[in-house]
Amino acid sequence: MKCLEKTLEEKNQFKGKILTLDIKTVELPNGKISEREIVKHPGGVAILAYKTDNTIILVEQFRSPIEKNILEIPAGKLEKGEDIETCCRRELEEETGYKAGKITFLGKIVTSPGFCDEYIHIFKAEDLYEGQIGGDEDEFINLHEVEVQKVKDMIKKGEIIDAKTISAFMLI
Amino acid sequence: MKCLEKTLEEKNQFKGKILTLDIKTVELPNGKISEREIVKHPGGVAILAYKTDNTIILVEQFRSPIEKNILEIPAGKLEKGEDIETCCRRELEEETGYKAGKITFLGKIVTSPGFCDEYIHIFKAEDLYEGQIGGDEDEFINLHEVEVQKVKDMIKKGEIIDAKTISAFMLI
Repeated sequence: MKCLEKTLEEKNQFKGKILTLDIKTVELPNGKISEREIVKHPGGVAILAYKTDNTIILVEQFRSPIEKNILEIPAGKLEKGEDIETCCRRELEEETGYKAGKITFLGKIVTSPGFCDEYIHIFKAEDLYEGQIGGDEDEFINLHEVEVQKVKDMIKKGEIIDAKTISAFMLI
Repeated sequence: MKCLEKTLEEKNQFKGKILTLDIKTVELPNGKISEREIVKHPGGVAILAYKTDNTIILVEQFRSPIEKNILEIPAGKLEKGEDIETCCRRELEEETGYKAGKITFLGKIVTSPGFCDEYIHIFKAEDLYEGQIGGDEDEFINLHEVEVQKVKDMIKKGEIIDAKTISAFMLI
């Protein structure tokens, strides 16, 4: 079956500091006209940062949309024009205070392809050494060093629910 | 470190058929005032539907936000007041044409907790039998029956990038 949709029109509804929201008018494969509500996001990176061979760093932070503190791997948004590896090194240091001797790209994911264009590029960081923590003054983060097997158990038990964190483990 | 943010005000910026976008004014742990752009989404379900002991059903569909056809496990949005298992059975039948003799809840994920409140509840469906395909006239879907090991390989190769699909495999 031909699945393509043809965009007939795209009208901006909201333009914020981070997000943009558009309504797209599309022609469906059967010729019918429909509308799609689409959020545009700059995309970002997430990092499996190995403190030792079998421990990684998790960040605990308050997430306003779900009004909860949750555990995630270090992550952050791409700045305008920034390449993904630079973003990875910047976010790793800002959130954890570490620089990495070795960075490996593991793959990319799309978080909510039904309504949002956000891609997250996932990296593995090894050979960590002290850098300088901080840089984003709106972030308040607690760091945890957790065994990889413990993280996998926490995922299965529902104690870690963040999709990028869970997905990262399928890419190693 | 205390990480909570206190919401001082929440102003709606967009209200669509599916999405709502608000700007929240929050007080950070250091007393500073900041703003958060927050997308509200009804949430949904995603289903690891086992056609046989070692094959699952993937749906291929065009995703307008990323302008691509991608492979995902069957999934869909919660309707107002719908419980998650009813949604699971409805979406499974609408998207694949199958009903399930056995449904097991595997866990929930949050897709983009930095800006969105979307939770996806993931289920395993077994003992499939013929139902009736269709129901959502804006969806155009190709079905694929793929071996579980092949799906895992496709995730590692970057041929499957959808976060809920990838996450589901960490929950079995």
